[in-house]
Amino acid sequence: PDDWTELDKRAVDTVRVLAADAVQKVGNGHPGTAMSLAPLAYTLFQRVMRHDPADADWIGRDRFVLSAGHSSLTLYIQLFLAGYGLELDDLKALRTWGSKTPGHPEYRHTNGVEITTGPLGQGLASAVGMAMAARRERGLFDPDAAPGESPFDHDIFVIASDGDIEEGVTSEASSLAGTQQLGNLTVVYDDNKISIEDDTTIALGEDTAKRYEAYGWHVQVVEGGENVTGLEAALKAAKAETDRPSFILLRTIIGYPAPKKMNTGAAHGAALGDDEVKAVKVALGFDPEQTFEVSDEVLAHAREVGKRGEHAKAEWQKGFDAWAQANPERKALLDRLVAKKLPEGWTDSLPTYPVDAKGTSTRKASGEVINAIAGVLPELWGGSADLAESNLTSIKGEKSFGPTSITTDMWKTDPYGRTLHFGVREHAMGSILNGIALHGPTRPYGGTFMVFSDYMRPAVRLAAIMEASVTYVWTHDSIGLGEDGPTHQPIEHLSALRAIPGLAVVRPGDANETAFAWRTILENAAPAGLALTRQNVPTLEGTSYEGVAKGAYVLSEASGGTPRLVLIGTGSELQIAVEAAKVLEGEGVPTRVVSMPCFEWFEAQDKSYRDSVIPPSVKARVAVEAGIAQSWHRWVGDAGEIVSIEHFGASADYQTLFKEFGFTTENVVAAAHLSLQHVEESK
Amino acid sequence: PDDWTELDKRAVDTVRVLAADAVQKVGNGHPGTAMSLAPLAYTLFQRVMRHDPADADWIGRDRFVLSAGHSSLTLYIQLFLAGYGLELDDLKALRTWGSKTPGHPEYRHTNGVEITTGPLGQGLASAVGMAMAARRERGLFDPDAAPGESPFDHDIFVIASDGDIEEGVTSEASSLAGTQQLGNLTVVYDDNKISIEDDTTIALGEDTAKRYEAYGWHVQVVEGGENVTGLEAALKAAKAETDRPSFILLRTIIGYPAPKKMNTGAAHGAALGDDEVKAVKVALGFDPEQTFEVSDEVLAHAREVGKRGEHAKAEWQKGFDAWAQANPERKALLDRLVAKKLPEGWTDSLPTYPVDAKGTSTRKASGEVINAIAGVLPELWGGSADLAESNLTSIKGEKSFGPTSITTDMWKTDPYGRTLHFGVREHAMGSILNGIALHGPTRPYGGTFMVFSDYMRPAVRLAAIMEASVTYVWTHDSIGLGEDGPTHQPIEHLSALRAIPGLAVVRPGDANETAFAWRTILENAAPAGLALTRQNVPTLEGTSYEGVAKGAYVLSEASGGTPRLVLIGTGSELQIAVEAAKVLEGEGVPTRVVSMPCFEWFEAQDKSYRDSVIPPSVKARVAVEAGIAQSWHRWVGDAGEIVSIEHFGASADYQTLFKEFGFTTENVVAAAHLSLQHVEESK
Repeated sequence: PDDWTELDKRAVDTVRVLAADAVQKVGNGHPGTAMSLAPLAYTLFQRVMRHDPADADWIGRDRFVLSAGHSSLTLYIQLFLAGYGLELDDLKALRTWGSKTPGHPEYRHTNGVEITTGPLGQGLASAVGMAMAARRERGLFDPDAAPGESPFDHDIFVIASDGDIEEGVTSEASSLAGTQQLGNLTVVYDDNKISIEDDTTIALGEDTAKRYEAYGWHVQVVEGGENVTGLEAALKAAKAETDRPSFILLRTIIGYPAPKKMNTGAAHGAALGDDEVKAVKVALGFDPEQTFEVSDEVLAHAREVGKRGEHAKAEWQKGFDAWAQANPERKALLDRLVAKKLPEGWTDSLPTYPVDAKGTSTRKASGEVINAIAGVLPELWGGSADLAESNLTSIKGEKSFGPTSITTDMWKTDPYGRTLHFGVREHAMGSILNGIALHGPTRPYGGTFMVFSDYMRPAVRLAAIMEASVTYVWTHDSIGLGEDGPTHQPIEHLSALRAIPGLAVVRPGDANETAFAWRTILENAAPAGLALTRQNVPTLEGTSYEGVAKGAYVLSEASGGTPRLVLIGTGSELQIAVEAAKVLEGEGVPTRVVSMPCFEWFEAQDKSYRDSVIPPSVKARVAVEAGIAQSWHRWVGDAGEIVSIEHFGASADYQTLFKEFGFTTENVVAAAHLSLQHVEESK
Repeated sequence: PDDWTELDKRAVDTVRVLAADAVQKVGNGHPGTAMSLAPLAYTLFQRVMRHDPADADWIGRDRFVLSAGHSSLTLYIQLFLAGYGLELDDLKALRTWGSKTPGHPEYRHTNGVEITTGPLGQGLASAVGMAMAARRERGLFDPDAAPGESPFDHDIFVIASDGDIEEGVTSEASSLAGTQQLGNLTVVYDDNKISIEDDTTIALGEDTAKRYEAYGWHVQVVEGGENVTGLEAALKAAKAETDRPSFILLRTIIGYPAPKKMNTGAAHGAALGDDEVKAVKVALGFDPEQTFEVSDEVLAHAREVGKRGEHAKAEWQKGFDAWAQANPERKALLDRLVAKKLPEGWTDSLPTYPVDAKGTSTRKASGEVINAIAGVLPELWGGSADLAESNLTSIKGEKSFGPTSITTDMWKTDPYGRTLHFGVREHAMGSILNGIALHGPTRPYGGTFMVFSDYMRPAVRLAAIMEASVTYVWTHDSIGLGEDGPTHQPIEHLSALRAIPGLAVVRPGDANETAFAWRTILENAAPAGLALTRQNVPTLEGTSYEGVAKGAYVLSEASGGTPRLVLIGTGSELQIAVEAAKVLEGEGVPTRVVSMPCFEWFEAQDKSYRDSVIPPSVKARVAVEAGIAQSWHRWVGDAGEIVSIEHFGASADYQTLFKEFGFTTENVVAAAHLSLQHVEESK
């Protein structure tokens, strides 16, 4: 560009040297991409993006997503240069215990990091969610502003690597981004043709630019990572393109200008070695004997972006204040959402259900809850991965999210619409939900069959790591799914999902518990997954909001108040525990029934509460759940029994399956006898 | 086609009527696609594919993969018509308990079903693996035959739906199929523009044909599912195209000719209703009052395919016999592999390691095992999802699998090569491994970081359901991964993988256990996942093949032979158990150390063996494993303690992480004291 100075060039070269030095110091890491993408990253942070290093949370900022998270130095060094609070000592502490510069960027850990991008593909896919959220939020707060005129208008920029391009989750998300015509999204693909197994020709022969054209994206190709003029022009053209997402294929040489290792896999994921680092410095006119050399002049020049950011924010603030003045209700909504508060009295909207032997399915109850609270909680939005009619995730009377051109007979769309249609793309759904939750203050949810939580698991794990406020509506949560058979019946999923630290897996036992579960999820910020039945379950006596919120509680007390036996159930098996308790009480065994919809919430209670629900002194315990026993041993203990299923399911109606696989009152009663016997024997 | 008769037309219409009737009878299922794809399925089974209904295992057969598994009737009705053993009563029993016609096709359950295709995307992705296996097997058995002249030449045909096209796993696999130039693969995409949420315009706006061109596929478009002439011409052109995989976009109308429900989501996944079924029959000239109407003439006509198949097989047999005659060694290899036998004395090739405090990493030992046995086990082949240098999965001296045009500086390729390069596509890798294992008698393996087992989980689950002989090489199996940080460190994965029924998760404790683990895995047929360390672990005293094969065993006995305490460890923490035992023995606590590399193998032993390893009478127990405790409660019991990690990891060197997160001898000793105290208190 015309105003590109020698100082800019020196700053870019400083980035390369810092990248080489930082990896060399710790002895491991990824120097090559941070070196070759130095011009791109510098151009984005210094010349293209609207951001203010003094306020990383400014809602008007452009978002930057480093999908190639292994190249964390690409981001850290720009945060250092721009003045986000990272200093040279932080770069020197790369990848060490307690540092602000871990191996991959971590959200909530380092100021200026928008999202945790470790596993490849997730960043790009979540960026699609951010771009969707930006549009939805604009629709919530400022729908009538002219294009580009709203304080809620901004762009999402992504740097993606070969691995991001190869991972299927980005194909899913990119296809959807094209359908959604996300003009506020720009992805730069660092086509360096090198991955860990060296030359990508061995595994990647496709025409990626053509593939993105097929998705309906605006596609540009820039030759040469050093071509800052072409790069900046492409980025500006991408920003100017508002009807389609933009894809810039940038052809770079990894590790440039390391004389021996550039353009090889050796530059990707290992320190270059002292000699090669020195050679880089010599090539760029730096002192080969110095490390972490940053001239005051370069740093001062780069930190001027702070002034530009301050100015940009001040300009933006005028527009924002005018908007706030003109839109007091919307401003109040924004304030409430940013404060992460729920509105006064919102729980009055929650449905309640009378005790009823016939009952309803918990998925249906969930759908009723969503619809009941949709009016008072405009922040709530979501959809399904092509199972809307099964997951019951749509909000009636609301339009679907999408350009009007994709309206169908069944779904009327609006760019600001509320119901999401992910297609059969569970993984992208998970990543997109993360992007939505990180972008702003709305509360997104997404539905699929519970068995397909496997497809979205990498995104669910990241939600847990990032503590993203995302809700999964996983229906058809057991063999109760019925006829579709073993490939569609969750068996191991409850245990496997409970295994993820920080994820609340909530399996309500009836319609009221479903409403209480939704309430508790929304009152908390942590990611949560609802496990919901396909089939009807009775609406039970004794359920309570307080109990559900604590994860487990006494649903019905043993006669006399002192149990000899505790039966624990969740979801569709809670009713079996209730029935079995009646039989056992009839036999003279004082039996307590515990409903335990959420292990994680229960674990968060203090020991005295936990012991009050499952008394340590009552060793005779039976758990019943239509899944594997793995996560239950802890709760039932040595003398306990677990009525579980330890093999895959089968294709038949659910009544037959419950019977054939032993989820019956008789079996629970038999297990209770066995557990009582264990207790006797151990005396 | 010229020889298409009225009887063919009637047969196709019979398919439609049977599909409508079968779903109507059970009351649920997917009639629409089975109806609209009737001409395609009939053309494939009756006119295009080489197969013999009398021998579903004929190795020379073309393979058929119904990736749109929900449309299982598409397959069942052809199996019925062709004479694979399914009869009308089986169709009448659709989706009911014990029937041969479950909701989705199940491998090993119904004769003629090549693969279990429930979850969308898996069939197409696994078909890529079948096509790869076909080429590799040809290379093993008959590499020098001219193209099309070998008894090992045949084709793979796939029917895929909108959902298959949307799922990312097919994007991964299709990109790789293009790179691999799999000319033996033909995918027909049923572009009916209807999925469960009705018109796919709401979520799928891409130009799919162009996308497949971008992958390097041969692409054809056929308008109209009734266009049997165009369809057959396209299928033959696809078969004739041997340098690229073929993609046929077939534009159909779902549910055709149901007058009210065709071309709507209502025809996709629900019974049509009595009136609509009758209307279909009227439209096709069938008696609306009859159900399951199949004329003898139609059935006899269709079953003639059996004679054609018999003839085709006889022709093929001549070529096969000539090959066998000319290639006795290769024939002997084929016979051994088909018999699922390992060669005499193969275990002599396995490496052994002397006891050594420094030791090696178990991933390195695994790489040495693979290389040591590669010569005697030509059936073994595999690779990595772009982590070959980390997973140590390459076989030295062997070429990579791929057309010579994708040779790189690092990897020499050959169409019959042995080392696989999946790119950063873990999910496709999982599905492809399934396809390879199902296609023929080779033993494939695939590597990635253990944390990315999440990405491949749907395929791993299917391997377990199908009992496919697949081995996963999951390295970097704990916080021992180190600097890459929490997104790359498995925490919950050991428990979450153990949760999958039928999957053996094997975590060897040192180099020798790694060799024993590989041996046991290969001696078994079940899918298995190795959990291997990045970091060195000492080579321990007392390891044994018999012990590893039984899943758990006494590594070192308590002094005096009667333990007061049992310490159980796996993988890199086994050494900590050994060290802690020394301390405890020094304190006068007779302590047994149990190595427990595989829960699943241990569970398969009889109770007396299990009790001999973990005596029920010894309640003081400590397990140590660098993962969550979830799967351990069962083994340590009420008085036990578990040294585990219940939160995500961090970015630092592994020594620091082990110390900071409490995986130390002192902590295990302290846990032992606590467990001994629990036992005392409970007396």
